[in-house]
Amino acid sequence: MTEAADAVETGRIEAFSDGVFAIAITLLVIELKLPETKDGSVWHGLVHEWPQFAAYLTSFFIIGIMWANHHSMFRSIVRADRVLLFLNLLLLLWTTLLPFPTRLVAENLRGGGTNATQAAAVYSATLTLAAISFSLIWWYAVRGGRLLAEPIGTSRDEWRSIGRFSVGTLLYTATIGISFASAGAALAIQFALAMYYLFEQVRSN
Amino acid sequence: MTEAADAVETGRIEAFSDGVFAIAITLLVIELKLPETKDGSVWHGLVHEWPQFAAYLTSFFIIGIMWANHHSMFRSIVRADRVLLFLNLLLLLWTTLLPFPTRLVAENLRGGGTNATQAAAVYSATLTLAAISFSLIWWYAVRGGRLLAEPIGTSRDEWRSIGRFSVGTLLYTATIGISFASAGAALAIQFALAMYYLFEQVRSN
Amino acid sequence: MTEAADAVETGRIEAFSDGVFAIAITLLVIELKLPETKDGSVWHGLVHEWPQFAAYLTSFFIIGIMWANHHSMFRSIVRADRVLLFLNLLLLLWTTLLPFPTRLVAENLRGGGTNATQAAAVYSATLTLAAISFSLIWWYAVRGGRLLAEPIGTSRDEWRSIGRFSVGTLLYTATIGISFASAGAALAIQFALAMYYLFEQVRSN
Amino acid sequence: MTEAADAVETGRIEAFSDGVFAIAITLLVIELKLPETKDGSVWHGLVHEWPQFAAYLTSFFIIGIMWANHHSMFRSIVRADRVLLFLNLLLLLWTTLLPFPTRLVAENLRGGGTNATQAAAVYSATLTLAAISFSLIWWYAVRGGRLLAEPIGTSRDEWRSIGRFSVGTLLYTATIGISFASAGAALAIQFALAMYYLFEQVRSN
Repeated sequence: MTEAADAVETGRIEAFSDGVFAIAITLLVIELKLPETKDGSVWHGLVHEWPQFAAYLTSFFIIGIMWANHHSMFRSIVRADRVLLFLNLLLLLWTTLLPFPTRLVAENLRGGGTNATQAAAVYSATLTLAAISFSLIWWYAVRGGRLLAEPIGTSRDEWRSIGRFSVGTLLYTATIGISFASAGAALAIQFALAMYYLFEQVRSN
Repeated sequence: MTEAADAVETGRIEAFSDGVFAIAITLLVIELKLPETKDGSVWHGLVHEWPQFAAYLTSFFIIGIMWANHHSMFRSIVRADRVLLFLNLLLLLWTTLLPFPTRLVAENLRGGGTNATQAAAVYSATLTLAAISFSLIWWYAVRGGRLLAEPIGTSRDEWRSIGRFSVGTLLYTATIGISFASAGAALAIQFALAMYYLFEQVRSN
Repeated sequence: MTEAADAVETGRIEAFSDGVFAIAITLLVIELKLPETKDGSVWHGLVHEWPQFAAYLTSFFIIGIMWANHHSMFRSIVRADRVLLFLNLLLLLWTTLLPFPTRLVAENLRGGGTNATQAAAVYSATLTLAAISFSLIWWYAVRGGRLLAEPIGTSRDEWRSIGRFSVGTLLYTATIGISFASAGAALAIQFALAMYYLFEQVRSN
Repeated sequence: MTEAADAVETGRIEAFSDGVFAIAITLLVIELKLPETKDGSVWHGLVHEWPQFAAYLTSFFIIGIMWANHHSMFRSIVRADRVLLFLNLLLLLWTTLLPFPTRLVAENLRGGGTNATQAAAVYSATLTLAAISFSLIWWYAVRGGRLLAEPIGTSRDEWRSIGRFSVGTLLYTATIGISFASAGAALAIQFALAMYYLFEQVRSN
């Protein structure tokens, strides 16, 4: 639609992404369903609907940590081109989609059985795709010091950094498999992972 | 998902939080239900649905004052670390959740009885958790002048400041109890509290 | 909830308000209902649902012009205190509420009769309350040059400025009355007013 | 509603537009419907609902590329007046509306027949109107170097730039016609166009 749009400064990519993260994290609430209520059953109804709150909580902290990590990453990335913009859109695609598998899990977890498994696997797959997008952005930015303020070091150093970055991707991929053993366990591990990534970084301060 | 993300500047925490507050305050409207209408009954229907407007109004001003206080607080806080980021996410968790108990109150207040009580208690508990998160942020930032531009003073001064800050937490905790006496009274007190916090600060100008 | 929060810079009030305007204008779309469809009836259904599109269009441009005017106003206002913050929240209250009367009009306009009248009157009243909030902000900021970069002039000049500002308020109040004569006419006049305010200002460039 | 609001700096138009783009792209998810589920049917249900995901994906990347192009355009545009503001609102109107025709396509594509055709034509028309708005903004800004930092060149150069800019408009107009031949083909072409515009610009880097 436009002519000659070359380098986009990272500032506006960050602002746009921040907006999307803030909206996605806030939109999660509209997927929560009110409990059916007969007299005196509000609390009982809320407790009965625990899977939707578990899914809400997990997705909330995952989007929160994604926002924080996105920020960390873009403190190193100082140049942007259209490939980065596309990879970033890919990351935002899975982020904005997340409320949907969250609802899918909320709806199907309690029933157990194959539906709970499949819903958890779809949820895990979405997280995995987001993690892959993160790795792709970092790989693209780091290789040859393409978009960084200063190169990380030797090619070997670059790959080590990309490798460390991609551990999360492997862990999220593993939760797809775990979903087939136990949907609840997959969700619990994903919640624990979000907490770990939050505090692992506290320790490194 | 990322490597070595240490101190996050408060600027981006503030921008993200501002976004979440703005979205949460605007999303409240989609919980409002259209009145059932037979001919000439629009006004009657709206009046009949007064609890949803009372809950809307209360939540609107509470999120508004939370935004204003968040801002005040972050004028003193100039450094950020991952613990602050986590505590801030905790505050945003209760803020983004607020439309849900708002709807719960809107749906159950008019019926009265145990459901109204339980809904109001859940609403009050959410506000209390938000107030506790505020206190935790202030406590964490103030202690030892950890994240402030300049220390507040002696350890005694610090605790006095944290104490003054935590009065709101006690008041909101009290409304949980009041919900059991009268759901409507709890809501009215919460609305009054929001107004007080708005104008108490006017006087101190 | 917080201690000693005195003057709030206008910058953050503007950013917060901008966010709320942007979200309110974008949220309007989720109130639009898909037409019932039998084969080949999509267009017919859309045409049949014209009131929701008329209401959407009117509210869209009204929020757009409110955003533009808010911006104009805050180019003159350089200081902020808690009263201004409260008056601004009041303005945002009616803005964020607007999707609700929009839906009310969309739902009741075609049926005609008393419901259409009442829905249009509620819609007009919301716009009037927003206009009043605008006038209050300007009155509060202007009087005695309280919050302006430089005073407008004599007290007489100030009142003239406030007066000119309040013409819109009178016009919107008039549409409440017009709703009782014709709901459609009230909506058409409000749309025309939004367009006028957009282009009147073009001429003054 | 306000007095004397002349030139609006582009900075705030950009920030407001960025907000609207970010919200519109994130809101798309709430139009996605959960599949009906009997045991073991989650995946089957998701596959069966493929049109809503195809429509989601297309709209997501179209809004993404619109955001990127808007940004490119406003790097050249350095002045703003009320006409530009109006034309920009027009562009945002079609952008914020997009979730509605997206839902219309999602609902009617699989059924095929006249409804699929009509839904795709409405979707294509919305994209065309957005493309026309883009062209209008560029035409208005470029003519006589009105709002640019530096004029593009001769009047002939200006028209060539506007012409190049308007190719997209013609292509989107063409997809309205293609909808009548095949709704699915129209959607596929629109998706391909979005990808082309993303990467055509990569090559020009």
